[in-house]
Amino acid sequence: MSERDARHKTSMQKLKRHVDEKVAQAKEQRGQLLVFTGNGKGKTTAAWGTVTRALGYGYRVGVVQFIKGLWECGERERLIDDENLQVAIMATGFTWDTQNRESDTRACQEVWREAERMLADESVYLVVLDEITYMLKFGYLDIDTVKRALKNRPPEQTVIVTGRNAHRDLVAMADTVTEMQETKHGFNAGLQARRGIDY
Amino acid sequence: MSERDARHKTSMQKLKRHVDEKVAQAKEQRGQLLVFTGNGKGKTTAAWGTVTRALGYGYRVGVVQFIKGLWECGERERLIDDENLQVAIMATGFTWDTQNRESDTRACQEVWREAERMLADESVYLVVLDEITYMLKFGYLDIDTVKRALKNRPPEQTVIVTGRNAHRDLVAMADTVTEMQETKHGFNAGLQARRGIDY
Repeated sequence: MSERDARHKTSMQKLKRHVDEKVAQAKEQRGQLLVFTGNGKGKTTAAWGTVTRALGYGYRVGVVQFIKGLWECGERERLIDDENLQVAIMATGFTWDTQNRESDTRACQEVWREAERMLADESVYLVVLDEITYMLKFGYLDIDTVKRALKNRPPEQTVIVTGRNAHRDLVAMADTVTEMQETKHGFNAGLQARRGIDY
Repeated sequence: MSERDARHKTSMQKLKRHVDEKVAQAKEQRGQLLVFTGNGKGKTTAAWGTVTRALGYGYRVGVVQFIKGLWECGERERLIDDENLQVAIMATGFTWDTQNRESDTRACQEVWREAERMLADESVYLVVLDEITYMLKFGYLDIDTVKRALKNRPPEQTVIVTGRNAHRDLVAMADTVTEMQETKHGFNAGLQARRGIDY
């Protein structure tokens, strides 16, 4: 065995011990609260990736979209025929298009009732609250209401929250938080958003 | 209109102008090179989310998995029957299990040939090179070979590269780079990885 190969072997053995130890330490089994936040690309996309994953094992999934109501959404198109998927959409579109706090608040409260129903249903394995952070930021939805629903949800249920500037109470409650940071964005260099990639 | 509602309206009008300006500036249309890197959760998941999205519009997609060969993968299960999806998998499993640089290199080169075929096929709208960063790091694959294949790919083709510690040349070539940063990870608090959520 060459010296480089031998070094590789030693280093991989060390890595394997580390991975095995961490796996052995992880003993608690329950649903998680995951937060995908930050200003970078991939928050909603990672949520839909997890939806695809859960559906792949036959689990029931609920998705509530708080902002993309009037957008095309390729993931939704691809998965919507799955009988295990329920999708609820806030139907007013972007809040910067409506520019109306009152009607946005009503639309938000309406779709939040769907979210509450999913968060109370133990047959739903995964619930995605997509872009809900903006609803809290704009005051369309009360943080205590959201916290209560999350806290009282079935213990086996995993919830994913997405959106920029996640409320600090959500970050504190969460089991796993990923901050998607934009290092570089093609849009800023003049590249058009692409169908099937960006939306 | 209340003062709060009026302030909201002004702020949304400003946001709308900003969004509209950025959209108007984005004039270039072509495939992108996207990099999902960093130590946080969501890199591979966001890639699969994009795969689901592209398939939703009927585009052809190729996925090359450089490390998860022996893992269960819910996304693959869910999407594999789609005639527009091709998946190639490096069949040796985790490099820290095999601990064998020589056989890993062979397996990597073999699956890379599949990647090269996809990267030369203009009917493939999206190619995912999942966890390829580790192949470069371990020296199983040469950075110049990868750069050449990316550079010569069809202009309409988008490529997603995932994995920690993306090579600086890939970051430099990329149109969009997101760094997924781990703020908090349930696994470190003793939570077991969950089927349908984490894998």
